Amino acid sequence: MDVTRTLARYVVEAPVDSVPEIVRREAVRSLVNWVGCAVGGSRHRSVDLALAAVSPFAGSAQAGLLGRSERLDLLNAALLNGIAGHVFDFDDTHLKTIIHPAGPVAAALIGLAELRPVSGRELLHAFILGVEVECRIGNAVYPAHYDIGWHITGTAGVFGAAAAAGRLLGLDEQQMVWALGIAGTQSSGFREMFGTMCKSFHPGRAAQNGLLAAFLAERGFTSSDRVLEAPRGFAHVMATARDFGAITDGLGESFEIALNTYKPFACGIVIHPSIDGCIQLRNEFGLKASDIERIELTVAPLVLELTGKKTPQVGLEGKFSVYHSAAVAILHGRAGEEEYGDAVVRDPAVIALRDRVVATASPAIADDECRVRILLQDGRVLERHVAHAIGSLERPMSDAGLDAKFAGLAEPVLGPAAAERLRSSCWQIETLGDAAAIARGAAA
Amino acid sequence: MDVTRTLARYVVEAPVDSVPEIVRREAVRSLVNWVGCAVGGSRHRSVDLALAAVSPFAGSAQAGLLGRSERLDLLNAALLNGIAGHVFDFDDTHLKTIIHPAGPVAAALIGLAELRPVSGRELLHAFILGVEVECRIGNAVYPAHYDIGWHITGTAGVFGAAAAAGRLLGLDEQQMVWALGIAGTQSSGFREMFGTMCKSFHPGRAAQNGLLAAFLAERGFTSSDRVLEAPRGFAHVMATARDFGAITDGLGESFEIALNTYKPFACGIVIHPSIDGCIQLRNEFGLKASDIERIELTVAPLVLELTGKKTPQVGLEGKFSVYHSAAVAILHGRAGEEEYGDAVVRDPAVIALRDRVVATASPAIADDECRVRILLQDGRVLERHVAHAIGSLERPMSDAGLDAKFAGLAEPVLGPAAAERLRSSCWQIETLGDAAAIARGAAA
Repeated sequence: MDVTRTLARYVVEAPVDSVPEIVRREAVRSLVNWVGCAVGGSRHRSVDLALAAVSPFAGSAQAGLLGRSERLDLLNAALLNGIAGHVFDFDDTHLKTIIHPAGPVAAALIGLAELRPVSGRELLHAFILGVEVECRIGNAVYPAHYDIGWHITGTAGVFGAAAAAGRLLGLDEQQMVWALGIAGTQSSGFREMFGTMCKSFHPGRAAQNGLLAAFLAERGFTSSDRVLEAPRGFAHVMATARDFGAITDGLGESFEIALNTYKPFACGIVIHPSIDGCIQLRNEFGLKASDIERIELTVAPLVLELTGKKTPQVGLEGKFSVYHSAAVAILHGRAGEEEYGDAVVRDPAVIALRDRVVATASPAIADDECRVRILLQDGRVLERHVAHAIGSLERPMSDAGLDAKFAGLAEPVLGPAAAERLRSSCWQIETLGDAAAIARGAAA
Repeated sequence: MDVTRTLARYVVEAPVDSVPEIVRREAVRSLVNWVGCAVGGSRHRSVDLALAAVSPFAGSAQAGLLGRSERLDLLNAALLNGIAGHVFDFDDTHLKTIIHPAGPVAAALIGLAELRPVSGRELLHAFILGVEVECRIGNAVYPAHYDIGWHITGTAGVFGAAAAAGRLLGLDEQQMVWALGIAGTQSSGFREMFGTMCKSFHPGRAAQNGLLAAFLAERGFTSSDRVLEAPRGFAHVMATARDFGAITDGLGESFEIALNTYKPFACGIVIHPSIDGCIQLRNEFGLKASDIERIELTVAPLVLELTGKKTPQVGLEGKFSVYHSAAVAILHGRAGEEEYGDAVVRDPAVIALRDRVVATASPAIADDECRVRILLQDGRVLERHVAHAIGSLERPMSDAGLDAKFAGLAEPVLGPAAAERLRSSCWQIETLGDAAAIARGAAA
């Protein structure tokens, strides 16, 4: 079973014009969403600290940081852009694996395009291939791999970054096999880090390490030819179960990026049905916190496992608290990045309502589903069943929704005019002669 | 159970004068051995290719490459020096865990001393602490962790590099906890990569990633406080069994570096008893290949598992072939780096004898033990039982043996005079006012 080589050959050989228009369209939507997130997240303290730490070691000003004025060597720029894109936990989600697929791949490619000229069409194609690689590898090991405690966006993302970068570098089949091998042997990142700055460090490092893998392979640096399937390779070492057919079957026929989704709310995606339901009831009944005796949520088991923090202390922890999220949904009627600032998490009004939220896990509830029951002070009981949260595959974000999200993220950083130009470049990526226009347009 | 914090506190607080002389002595021997290996390995193709790949992205000339004239930023220098130190598979071994402990820690510290001035005594102490951290973490998860397929030198080494670098940076307890967390969430490296360039890439990346972790933590970049013990932290995610007492018991009383060993032969350590026995019989009986009908080895099971390559094609694979190693032991009477060159692996005389080597695993044979039985063409049978191979804890390399090994590795690179000066600096590290003298003396 030649899993790694089969995948490598596909990435090397896939014709640029072989991807259906509907798939390319979703790839563009993914890119728009991610660039907005990266610009929006670029001023976060995690980025400031990481930039301060790596700056003394950085090389020449090859690649820009989205949303900022600094330029670093390509590898460090990829790290920083990868952190920025995920730091709000607002980026895209491949629901089958909970991978946030754009970050590791896009953070690698956006900078690479500044160093090695490439058309927007070629960049988008490499992006689609990189996402294909990481999500197929994710499909092969999910959920066993995730259940152990691996942060799959980092662990699978590094393969995607290597594949996409290797494609733009024009690696041959053997080099691509090595690139995947060098990437895989750097695969890392614990879910234990959720709620700390290391969570966004993972896609940043995945982008950077995948790029390094591609550059090493380009020079002829060798790895195993069987990183995915060998008994001591990725799928056996890092998962208790695996399905290699998920990697090799239907390559070039089905595209995982077509299944990508985008968050309307700036927090862990499993909380979204609860927020959606709370906002619906709030808006319909004009609810205020003082009206509410108790909020009862019946949620999927994963919700409490991933986002069960009852007393978050800082914004990052709030993103992993279904309790905080339900409270701000009622109080603010939204759950954007602002609702996960440290000040909001510590707001006594939010805390008081948060402490009246009760969440119960039920195996009968799907991951994008929720039942909300609000008991009012006057004795009334309001109920709402969210079958599929907004932002799910069944109720996808519209292009207009993505535009509004982009504006909300990018305008405070770049100003309205530059944000609008950047948004337009992203939507029109397939017409760009030089894909570096995106990185240039995203500079502050 | 506060495993991570307990370890971090020890690394931060351990007084420089708290390490017994006998332990410091072994640390100096470890350093002498590793510097020789790194200088000797510095011209290997793996180093050339990695240097070519990272050079376009490297920062200012902060730190030297041992055995070479190039200088890179500290993080990339640590990667390259870590590769060079392990590429011959000739470095030290902590036999309880099969960790090669010096590399990840020394490759981080040697360069750091060029950037932040430190005395030789302080550097040696940080080195001892780094090795303590990686080996204790290794003790806690070995063999379960290794059995899964993790290359423990990379996976545990990154913690050691972070701890040692963090000590020299003067991190406080919380920063050290974060440094261990950021290090741990980068822990990676598959045994599948053995026999490829990625094997030495692992300690190189461990050094580089551990340094990055320390610099991030210094700035306040946060991680989990419980990377080692948390249910989704290192010991649970990356091992099927664990003993946290091995990390926290007797800190500051016993020292793992006192158990370090050094290889007389440039290959996988489990082959050493076989080589030792073959050389003994060769020298005693003046054996030539033409005398020999068959060589029968009874070896520990791990020997065939790790080094069972029957038909190695290149030098790197030869290091993982007990068959090739026994053949060169008889033909050359030694098994230095030269015996693992591509030309020797492809030498028809070596291949002809290699094909007459039969190795049988027996659970009754210890890892440092071997029974050699040589059937001669004239009908005689020669036998030798090696209870403990030369280089084991029971038959350690002498200082003179380390000197000879150092000279053999460093003289071809630096010339006899510079090699001698460097060797002397290493032995006298505790008297150096400026530990950067080692990196300076190792420059070509």
